[in-house]
Amino acid sequence: MRLSELSERSGVPVATVKYYLRERLLPAGTRISATQADYDEGHLRRLRLVRALLQVGRLPVATAREVLAHIDDESLGRTIRLGAALWALPHGPEPDEDAPETATARAEVARLLSELGWTTALELGELSPVHRSLVASLATLIRLGYPCDVTYLAQQARLMREVAVQDLDALELFSTEAERVEAAVASAVLYEPLLASLRRLAQAEESAERYGL
Amino acid sequence: MRLSELSERSGVPVATVKYYLRERLLPAGTRISATQADYDEGHLRRLRLVRALLQVGRLPVATAREVLAHIDDESLGRTIRLGAALWALPHGPEPDEDAPETATARAEVARLLSELGWTTALELGELSPVHRSLVASLATLIRLGYPCDVTYLAQQARLMREVAVQDLDALELFSTEAERVEAAVASAVLYEPLLASLRRLAQAEESAERYGL
Repeated sequence: MRLSELSERSGVPVATVKYYLRERLLPAGTRISATQADYDEGHLRRLRLVRALLQVGRLPVATAREVLAHIDDESLGRTIRLGAALWALPHGPEPDEDAPETATARAEVARLLSELGWTTALELGELSPVHRSLVASLATLIRLGYPCDVTYLAQQARLMREVAVQDLDALELFSTEAERVEAAVASAVLYEPLLASLRRLAQAEESAERYGL
Repeated sequence: MRLSELSERSGVPVATVKYYLRERLLPAGTRISATQADYDEGHLRRLRLVRALLQVGRLPVATAREVLAHIDDESLGRTIRLGAALWALPHGPEPDEDAPETATARAEVARLLSELGWTTALELGELSPVHRSLVASLATLIRLGYPCDVTYLAQQARLMREVAVQDLDALELFSTEAERVEAAVASAVLYEPLLASLRRLAQAEESAERYGL
């Protein structure tokens, strides 16, 4: 399809599509004449993801470009490719090495992962920014005097594993690996607020059921 | 205890404690002389919560004051009191009434809640900002071409309900209603990033188990 059709079908203005092309967020189309290029369904899908990253995830252009580069790196294994793309997304705070609670939190996270038997997380350790921000969040809780024990965290982690099972089952519905990785990134950015809303609604529901309004 | 001890035990500098007192984020102590006041364990607990709201939740002072006012309003029933405090917290985007996807999203959320049998959420409807931001998030997903069907959302919502059961069980451990509401607010602010990290770690774990690294 032409640029004008790409713009129309995606609802993204032509000028914005051109900007994404210049910023290498969207791969160039196949040149069919000196002034025209052809775009396919892959461009349409990528355009949707770019909007999700920039408009909903509010990622800086350079970060979005990095995420997309990992998505396109076919030399990587599936988990690493997905991991690299997700790791490039904005994540929580970094552990504060000067705070005495950080060492406690680090030991707690290690105990939690052992109890869960999550060997990949144990193996990758704090190479993963997600792991690091888990340590940092827990250290903050401890510092503010809201300790949470490993048993409680493990229960919540097991439920999150069930969520992840559903997430990955949903990804299986896509036919190509590129689509799956794109959808996983979109899900990380777009579904997190949705899941947080569902949790708060569920709390209100559970409270009303137990104690009335 | 004196102001100096309150500062020491909480790790909050004296000047900051005085600022919180001036801003009515922390109730005044019991006056014991012209220049001295006495503070109790309730002050210590409140100080912890104020720090969580301002430093971790990054709430504006006026918003924090509103949240705390609901926590202190003993005239309300438990669910309403908790709800009012949670509703005053920052939440997701508001539905865009000019977007055609908003009506679709609204109908989907209503179907979801019916399927779940969440009568309180159905009854309160979009009075709840959490409900409104669920509609807004879903409308964004639809607009960007990532539709998610009610069956998938219902599965995730049921898992969030199990999370909420654990959340409320944890609150039962506190002996007073004021402590429970405070802890619920702290949990909403402090545990959301933690839960998001656990979900991402779980996704990586599940992916590694299914497909290798």
